[in-house]
Amino acid sequence: MKLEKILNPTSVAVIGASREPEKVGHRLLRNIVEGGFRGSIYPVNPNAEEILGLKCYKNVLEVPGEVDLAVLSVPAKLVPTVARECGEKGVRGLIVISAGFGETGAEGLRLERETVDVCKRYGMRLQGPNCLGLINTRQGLNATFAGAAPAKGRIALLSQSGALGSAMLNWALEKKLGFTYFVSLGNEADLSAADFLEVLAEDDETRVIGMYIEGTKNGQRFMDVCAKTSRKKPVVVLKSGTTESGMKAVSSHTGSLAGSDTAFTAACRKAGIIRASNLEELFNLLRGFGSLPPMRGKDVLIFTNGGGPGILATDACEKASLEIPVMEEEILLELGKLLPPHASIHNPVDILGDADEKRYRSGLDIALSSSKIAGAIVIVTPQAMTPVREIASAIVEVCSRHPDKTVLPVFMGVTGEPIEILEKNGLPNYEFPEAAALVLSGMYKYEQFWSSPESRPVTFEDIDHDQIKRIIEGAKKEGRVRLTIEECMKVARACNIKTPDMIVARNADEAVEAAEHVGYPVAMKIVSPDIVHKTDLGGVVLRVARAEDVRKNYEEMVGRIRTTVPGSRIHGVMIQAMAPPGKEVIIGAVRDPQFGPLLMFGLGGIYVDFLRDVAYALCPLSASEAEEMIRETKAHTLLRGVRGERASDVKSVVETILRISQVITEFSDILEMEINPLIVYEEGKGCLAIDIRMTISQ
Amino acid sequence: MKLEKILNPTSVAVIGASREPEKVGHRLLRNIVEGGFRGSIYPVNPNAEEILGLKCYKNVLEVPGEVDLAVLSVPAKLVPTVARECGEKGVRGLIVISAGFGETGAEGLRLERETVDVCKRYGMRLQGPNCLGLINTRQGLNATFAGAAPAKGRIALLSQSGALGSAMLNWALEKKLGFTYFVSLGNEADLSAADFLEVLAEDDETRVIGMYIEGTKNGQRFMDVCAKTSRKKPVVVLKSGTTESGMKAVSSHTGSLAGSDTAFTAACRKAGIIRASNLEELFNLLRGFGSLPPMRGKDVLIFTNGGGPGILATDACEKASLEIPVMEEEILLELGKLLPPHASIHNPVDILGDADEKRYRSGLDIALSSSKIAGAIVIVTPQAMTPVREIASAIVEVCSRHPDKTVLPVFMGVTGEPIEILEKNGLPNYEFPEAAALVLSGMYKYEQFWSSPESRPVTFEDIDHDQIKRIIEGAKKEGRVRLTIEECMKVARACNIKTPDMIVARNADEAVEAAEHVGYPVAMKIVSPDIVHKTDLGGVVLRVARAEDVRKNYEEMVGRIRTTVPGSRIHGVMIQAMAPPGKEVIIGAVRDPQFGPLLMFGLGGIYVDFLRDVAYALCPLSASEAEEMIRETKAHTLLRGVRGERASDVKSVVETILRISQVITEFSDILEMEINPLIVYEEGKGCLAIDIRMTISQ
Repeated sequence: MKLEKILNPTSVAVIGASREPEKVGHRLLRNIVEGGFRGSIYPVNPNAEEILGLKCYKNVLEVPGEVDLAVLSVPAKLVPTVARECGEKGVRGLIVISAGFGETGAEGLRLERETVDVCKRYGMRLQGPNCLGLINTRQGLNATFAGAAPAKGRIALLSQSGALGSAMLNWALEKKLGFTYFVSLGNEADLSAADFLEVLAEDDETRVIGMYIEGTKNGQRFMDVCAKTSRKKPVVVLKSGTTESGMKAVSSHTGSLAGSDTAFTAACRKAGIIRASNLEELFNLLRGFGSLPPMRGKDVLIFTNGGGPGILATDACEKASLEIPVMEEEILLELGKLLPPHASIHNPVDILGDADEKRYRSGLDIALSSSKIAGAIVIVTPQAMTPVREIASAIVEVCSRHPDKTVLPVFMGVTGEPIEILEKNGLPNYEFPEAAALVLSGMYKYEQFWSSPESRPVTFEDIDHDQIKRIIEGAKKEGRVRLTIEECMKVARACNIKTPDMIVARNADEAVEAAEHVGYPVAMKIVSPDIVHKTDLGGVVLRVARAEDVRKNYEEMVGRIRTTVPGSRIHGVMIQAMAPPGKEVIIGAVRDPQFGPLLMFGLGGIYVDFLRDVAYALCPLSASEAEEMIRETKAHTLLRGVRGERASDVKSVVETILRISQVITEFSDILEMEINPLIVYEEGKGCLAIDIRMTISQ
Repeated sequence: MKLEKILNPTSVAVIGASREPEKVGHRLLRNIVEGGFRGSIYPVNPNAEEILGLKCYKNVLEVPGEVDLAVLSVPAKLVPTVARECGEKGVRGLIVISAGFGETGAEGLRLERETVDVCKRYGMRLQGPNCLGLINTRQGLNATFAGAAPAKGRIALLSQSGALGSAMLNWALEKKLGFTYFVSLGNEADLSAADFLEVLAEDDETRVIGMYIEGTKNGQRFMDVCAKTSRKKPVVVLKSGTTESGMKAVSSHTGSLAGSDTAFTAACRKAGIIRASNLEELFNLLRGFGSLPPMRGKDVLIFTNGGGPGILATDACEKASLEIPVMEEEILLELGKLLPPHASIHNPVDILGDADEKRYRSGLDIALSSSKIAGAIVIVTPQAMTPVREIASAIVEVCSRHPDKTVLPVFMGVTGEPIEILEKNGLPNYEFPEAAALVLSGMYKYEQFWSSPESRPVTFEDIDHDQIKRIIEGAKKEGRVRLTIEECMKVARACNIKTPDMIVARNADEAVEAAEHVGYPVAMKIVSPDIVHKTDLGGVVLRVARAEDVRKNYEEMVGRIRTTVPGSRIHGVMIQAMAPPGKEVIIGAVRDPQFGPLLMFGLGGIYVDFLRDVAYALCPLSASEAEEMIRETKAHTLLRGVRGERASDVKSVVETILRISQVITEFSDILEMEINPLIVYEEGKGCLAIDIRMTISQ
């Protein structure tokens, strides 16, 4: 893999190396030299003989040995030429630090493309441009112009922002976070986050991968790589800003209810990505994943020498959907024997303000033996004469005896030696119980993903693909992007989704005949490719009970539509048997340009708009994903039955979701498809698609 | 005020002073001595001649001079005796550090009460017991046994947890927070948080008061004092745990939908309290309120030398309900002239990674001149050659020129001198943009409260108090706590809340007669003081359209209730005119034992239970509070009209809310009152209370 030569080079050329200490080209070279890189280092600068005691070369072609990696810090307009020289020299990878490319406009973008073309021609890979560089702690390679490199460790960090990258490196240094790699992605002209992820997924030293991203160029590939990586190690992402993609075709609720972050969130969930909601949480999660054993359950022991912080920790765990279980009787008895009378032996265990290291050691040892406990938050507040240092050592000792438990120390308002003792022994200290709870919760979420079987999408064999294709092609031939209600209903039937009895009438007489046939009362709906919101335009009349009313409504409706939407094509009026009442839900799907088809489920009917009680998931869906979507919404409560009602046929809803998921996945021409309402009946009695909308691509 | 002698003593006795360095009684004395207390210090210990160079007294009575304050660190069982001696001596205030009181059980509680009795007898006030002590930085008094005292400043901090108190003091020291007072409240046997608040509200040196609380003994007084204090200075509260009070009488939705925190949250809102959601946020808010000018609007300038952090800050501001406004054309022009071509002159302003102090100074000066801006987040990421120290000085300088703007620096991953420059000049640095956004949001919330007129509850003159009193007394005479539907409807009418036409029928004949009178179709509802959930027990039949059905339903309903609730008293069946359809909402009120009557508004009908779309507020309500409650719920969207419907009569809903608020406030006998549904009609057509429940106290 070509990337290897960027990530693990044995020789590095710094092109644009400078003698002036305040220049990036100087700092870069110095960082590589002072970082202790063990390979060859070649400064390149046509105007210097020697920099930092190293012989300087006029250009890369003059360098005597092989060059794996060239780090470029020359003006943007020179980059393509320098890249060409690198190609001639046989360099394997470039890191372009220089700015002035795609981020600055058309001319920069041209330079960027030219550089990528050169790289492609010579088989080189390119990191950047417009980036901070790369750090590989194992090789002692600090090819960045940041202030200082972090220590060796088990965390890899990718950043799309150079500015944030440098701040993160400073924090890492301050908090003593250890890294394997740090990669500043820059403009991702060639190598993207996904490319680096693929390599880091296989790197045994890397236990967790953190990322700061603002957007993805190829969402589906990014998420595929994330999903594969997540099966091996946790990927923690902080994403900022709104996805530019947005929903272009939004004539449906499914599109308009989706926020800018909806598709990304759904994608993260499918890929097992753990999301941090801010920088601090990203750091906290990386520290936890980087050194602690996995969190195998949601049950947390809280162990404290102060009541107040214990309550805060309990609150925080509850907010983070963790639980504070009751421990076994034996454990409580043992704790009772050990602890003073006023201590609380029940979880949260409060060993009181005068607790010394002995009480921590024995008490924690007993409590961690409980099989009810997957992890722990151990709080130490420095009171009167609390021997904080000794307690730190005691906790380290006890944790080594319980390697299967995820124990997070929370020494509050403590700095210096005690914290160093903890962290040297792989126990990251958290200043606040709330932070610790969020870390345990993130670690538990990852474990849930990791231990769940890979999601297997459901495929139905009875879907009439030919019929669907015919309908779509028919509409396309007419240059239409919207299907009529008649076509939509046919698609639904081809998907084996039940619809009410219906006949399209082309005139009032046919309408009466149709109504007699499907049976009174009937619903009447305009059939026109030009009308999307039929109800709003008076294109729907419900509960028509007599022949004379059918006739009258036919004429009136057609007249009304002709007046309000002049020139609209009217294919007739659909006469539908009125469906018996049931619970109304909505199932919709839209195609996100970044992440592909996205399915929505929620409360239907007129409530869609104002309750906005909907859940989203990326297609194709497995049965359990479909069930989970339903459980996430309040529609779930409604379907289970409110106030003594019988339960509704949730199974048939799951099936309908899966059928829609399959069809939108298989037919890339379908942009949107939405059933609203889908009326759901009592258990075993199925559901009916009352109204459907579909949009196709041109 | 007696508290003065505790908060600002001129002489202090330390009773239980010890020679042994690891004892609390030693640490206490040493802290007072080393803290630089300028008044007299008297150690009391019957077994020592001298401690820390101070003459020691056998007991407090032997002390030659006057003693304002005695700090006790003697075993709990000796405390009442020592307190008595203090009383004899004429001591004005006691701080009891010792534990072993109410927190340990019955015997401890007895000692605690005895101590309070002694204090009352001698006119002394008592802080604690079981507390960490008190710090008054102005006097250099550190009467705690904590490690070190914080610096002088403008923040007062009250804590109900000693353990958390000591951690907070350590943090304060580390983050260089300056305090006026720190008070550890302990068991609040005598002096409570409210007592200290009253004094701190008047203290000119104190700019903001922070509190960690777990519960309040007298919720109404606490909130009254908070409300008064909030009119003078911000009160920031971190509350942990669930209120013990809970809702005792919960036969209503209003009670059952209220979480354990609902009443406290409503109370905070009414009192203008700013709530921190965790310790870190408490600290961040205190630092902001403690030194920055008020945040007078919700519009934030983001000024950054890195794109990524700028996006994070923008996201965080949006999440915190702040806005990132567009600045005036002139400002943009000026920024354009100053900044390099690729910089972003639009908010967020990105002055690029190579920005020096000059660019910060001039750019920020221009941007802060914008009248669109109330506050700013100024981000500095340490890149290549960023002159961080010089930028800190430049920001300080620019801020002094814009004293009306709330400017928060966010130097990311920076420590040491630059931060000291900022903080010495009253600019607290925040490590993360998210933290800064939350602080600005909290400060803006406070400003909104502070600048809003005091809420004036609405009082209606047309309420028939005598009638309501008669109905309540009638039920009480019969030993009932539940009113019948008939009584509830009468109460509603006495409140001038409209109800449908109705007649209570005592037999089937009367029922038919009543139905003819109110007009078909009718609703039939059982009238019984023993039935709360009428619908669930078959005590409600709707849309009865014919005389024969009225007769049949009467007999069946009465029979059914007799079978399912044997022995229930049945007063008859209410025959109600069927109300025309409209929007269904719920208005309820319950009495919280801590904070008094609490009103709920939300979507009504069968949706109450599963949508849980409700808002709460503490009574008595002003008109704007009632309007705000409605706006908070999704019912608001429904009432404004969904999909082309006409708007509903929101005014009549507001009036009904206010009438219920007034009645439950005025009649302390009413425990619960709930209208569900209240049917709301089109604008100008009012609303109708269809069903009502009421519970009264015995």
